[in-house]
Formats: sequence, C-alpha cells, structure tokens
Amino acid sequence: MTNTTTTAISPEQQQIEQQLTEQVIASFDNCDQPRLKQLLQSLTKHLHAFIREVRLTEDEWNAAIAFLTAAGHITDDKRQEFILFSDVLGASMQTIAVNNQAVGNATESTVFGPFFTEDAPRIPQGGDIASGAAGEPCWVEGTVRDTENNPVPRARIEVWEADEDGFYDVQYADGRTAGRAWLLADENGAFRFWGLTPTPYPIPHDGPVGKMLKAVHRSPFRASHLHFMVMAPGYRTLVTHIFVEGDPQLEVGDSVFGVKESLIKKFEQQPVGTPTPDGRDLGNITWARTRFDIVLTRENS
Amino acid sequence: MTNTTTTAISPEQQQIEQQLTEQVIASFDNCDQPRLKQLLQSLTKHLHAFIREVRLTEDEWNAAIAFLTAAGHITDDKRQEFILFSDVLGASMQTIAVNNQAVGNATESTVFGPFFTEDAPRIPQGGDIASGAAGEPCWVEGTVRDTENNPVPRARIEVWEADEDGFYDVQYADGRTAGRAWLLADENGAFRFWGLTPTPYPIPHDGPVGKMLKAVHRSPFRASHLHFMVMAPGYRTLVTHIFVEGDPQLEVGDSVFGVKESLIKKFEQQPVGTPTPDGRDLGNITWARTRFDIVLTRENS
Repeated sequence: MTNTTTTAISPEQQQIEQQLTEQVIASFDNCDQPRLKQLLQSLTKHLHAFIREVRLTEDEWNAAIAFLTAAGHITDDKRQEFILFSDVLGASMQTIAVNNQAVGNATESTVFGPFFTEDAPRIPQGGDIASGAAGEPCWVEGTVRDTENNPVPRARIEVWEADEDGFYDVQYADGRTAGRAWLLADENGAFRFWGLTPTPYPIPHDGPVGKMLKAVHRSPFRASHLHFMVMAPGYRTLVTHIFVEGDPQLEVGDSVFGVKESLIKKFEQQPVGTPTPDGRDLGNITWARTRFDIVLTRENS
Repeated sequence: MTNTTTTAISPEQQQIEQQLTEQVIASFDNCDQPRLKQLLQSLTKHLHAFIREVRLTEDEWNAAIAFLTAAGHITDDKRQEFILFSDVLGASMQTIAVNNQAVGNATESTVFGPFFTEDAPRIPQGGDIASGAAGEPCWVEGTVRDTENNPVPRARIEVWEADEDGFYDVQYADGRTAGRAWLLADENGAFRFWGLTPTPYPIPHDGPVGKMLKAVHRSPFRASHLHFMVMAPGYRTLVTHIFVEGDPQLEVGDSVFGVKESLIKKFEQQPVGTPTPDGRDLGNITWARTRFDIVLTRENS
C-alpha cells in the first residue's frame, strides 16, 4: 500500500503493468459490436496510461471514486454535474471539435450547453427575443451564406441567452420563456433581431466540480455570449455562440473553453438617444449593436 | 453534428484539436498543489487523446454522460457502481500494481474488494473462520516469511471470503459476522485455520456496469478466492487472495482481473472420512486442504 511515485520502475514491473493493460483490452475481444469494442478498448488503454504515468496512489484512487460518487448524487433532472465535469476538462469542446471539422471559411462551432429548449417562440425579422428578460437591448444583424458566398435563404435561426443576472429562463422556477426565440432568414439570407447585450455568468459551482475549480484557482465564469443554432436543408446544422470583444472574462478564460477567435464580435455601445435601426424608441437607456455573418457548410463536405 | 470518423483529419484540424488540449492543460497552471496539478493535467491529456483517437461522436458523448449518471444514481452506502466500473476496466488492479511493485520473491498483491470489515473476530491457531457460513470446510496452513526466508513471527493475518451461495456476511440483512476472522502467526511464522473452499460468485450486475459486461459478452463472475491481509511491524502490508487451481472461471476470466499465476493454489479434495489434521470430526462430508506460504517485503524496500 506504499506510494511508489519516487521509486524507479523496473523493466519487470513495466512488463507486469503492460500485461495487465493488454489483458483488459483482450477481455473485450468477444464484443460483436465493433464500435463499442473500439471505444472500450481505447478507453482502457488511455485510462491505464493515465494511472501508470502519474503512479496513481490508492488514496488518490479513493478520492476519484468519492468525486464521482458526489457528482452522481448532486445530479438530477435539473443539475448535470457530469456534463459540467466534461465541460471544465474541455472534453465537451474537444468532442465538438472532432465532430465539426473546420471547412474553409465556414463559421466555427462551439458548445451547445444545457439551456436550449425545443419550444422557443417564433419572432418576425426585427423582433425581440427578450420577452421581458432583463438586460441592455442589443441589435443583432447579419447574413447566412454558404462557403461559396451564396446566400442561404430562409435558414432557421435559434437564439438564446442568459439575462443580465446571469440566468436562463429555465433556471427560474416560474416557468417563464424569455431570452430565446427563433426566426427565419429572408430570401437573401439576411436576418435582424433585438436581443440582450450578453453578460458573464458562472456555471453552477456549489458541487464537486466547483470545489475542484476552486482548488486549482480557476474561475467558474463563462465569457459573455449569445447562443445560435442555424439549420437549413442541405447544410450541416451549426451550433455556436458569439462572444463580446473586450469582455474581461476572455482574458481570464472561459470556464468551458468555448471561445474561438473568429466568434468574438464587436458589440458597439450606443449612447442614450442614438436612433435605432428600426426606429424603435428605447427611451432613456443605452443600447448596443453587433453583426454576425454566418457561413454554413454543405452536408457531407 | 456529423460523425467524421471516416473523414480524413487535416493538419489544420489536428492543430485545432491539439491547441484545445494544450489550452485546457494550461488552465491548471495556477494550481499551487503540484500533485493535484499533475493529476489533472495528465487526466486532461489522456481524456483528450481518447476522444481524438476514437473520434467520439456527440451521441456517444451523451451515452457516456447517461452511463455515469445511472452509475451515480445506483450508488449508495451499500452499492458502489464506480468501484465496479474501475474494477471491470482493470483500473483498480492497475492501481494495485503501481503501488505494490513486485520485490524479489515476495507474495504478489491483488484487489482489496469492498467486503473487508475492521471488526472481524479473533480466532486461535487452528480455529474456524466460518461461524456458520455455508460451505465445504477447508484446512488452510502456511508460513509468513521475509524475502530472505526468515520467519516473521506473530504477523497478523486477516482472512475473509464469500459463502457457498456467493455472498459475504455483510451482504445479508441480518447483521451476521461469518466467513471472516483474524489470527496471529506463531513464533515461527506458521499459521493454520479452518475456512471454506472458495466458490465463484458474480459482482453485482443489475446496474449499468452489468449491462456493459453483457453487451460485450463478458462474465460478471469472479474466480473463486480467499482474501488475505497480512500485517507485521517493519513490513509492507500485503493485500491479496489465493485462487483455486482448476476453477473453470480461471479460464473464462476473472471479472476484475485479480488473478496472478503465483496466487493459484492446489486445493486438495479429501474424501469423506479422511482424518483431519487436527482430529476434528467433520462427520459425513468431504473437506479440502491447501497451503499458502506468504513472503512479506520490508518497508521502504
């Protein structure tokens, strides 16, 4: 039961460890689902490589079991600690990266997040997604095009975001729908709507993942962002965010590694009284505007 | 959201993925606990390598989250699905291997398992550990020596095992203590006691781990075994089992990879009426006998 971290690892010992790994890998040989077999054999290989590389102690193994147990017990219908753990280890973002390879000038993807809902209301061009969600109004406009710069007409654009208090509608107990909507781009691929200027908020950090982040001095905050999901027949569905240039959290680091340079956009602050693009009277408040030109990839490209 | 398994991975894409991994690793740079930092950075490296190697799909990522969630929800004070998962992936055994490097002719270690208790009764030399546990009586004798063949006097020997129905005492609801005890080796390091001939039993397999074993056509059964933990001042504590030569489960494979050749022992079947070593009258039943000569390693060797 001794920690052997500082002990030299003899060739005999290395062979014992390697043979064990190979024995476990071979235990999956009879699996008749080739993909499942591949996944479990690769998982075994990498898990054993981790244990051997760090010379995991028995106390640390116990701590890992306790961490997973605590994560399991805090997880319920509304709270998903395993997704948070995947997020803060960049595993969610790496999965996104693997499944959405960059194609030419196509818009990059980022994490989906747990706050999308299927039943958002439809708004017309120029409509407001806020539905009462608190925050600074923000005019968002842009186009949907393909990688050859042709407009993609009538793409479906879903947008959703947190309010200025850092909460999505589904995090309130009152069943509200706010800060989310969908609209169709026009015949030229153009779209425009009112949203809210995004603000930073922390991922839930009162559980084991939050404790881990604290122990390693990492911020639980996400960089400010506005979610998009864009769908059009014949094109790959795009799941992404736009981020706010100058947001200090971009320097600190997004807690789930969702930021890509190409997704950071200028949000131009407009002084009180600046005329709005659609003539809307906002009264005595500031507003902002941004532009997001979206490039979709053809399916199977 | 497309599965890109069959798509070539461009150098640009590889760079994107590698940079993400490096960004996550760097996020732990400010951790002021060097060991914690090492563990999380290595975990990140191997987890990302797994995702990239298998080109994990988003559906598979969802299935992994669902598996961990189900494991968390079946885990309670009496059931530990995460330990089972570690066991069947050989991660528990690899941790044992890393922490208990083979030293010369010292007895090899194997998994501790979840069924040891601190409060087993003491028995004298030649005593019976069964306390009513069902099974064939088995005479166990041997010596405790050091790696230079000197006797280790008065080593403390803890032994525990399942009954012939495949259950440890703690798995019954009636609070019984049976099939476990401790004794001291004598001044010459010799010991002898009555136990039960070990029989195979399955690990709990009505949860997500059992479902996984079934999907890959792996047996949930452990090879028949008798647990030992041997302690003596100045020596490393030895946690091990002995296995039964000829047990068919040795061919099928032990579900937690605990078997080592050196731990497989002859259990000699004795016909009804064969005189017992200590003159005990067993009546009209068969019994067995085995020998286990234990070699301890000095601490810090």
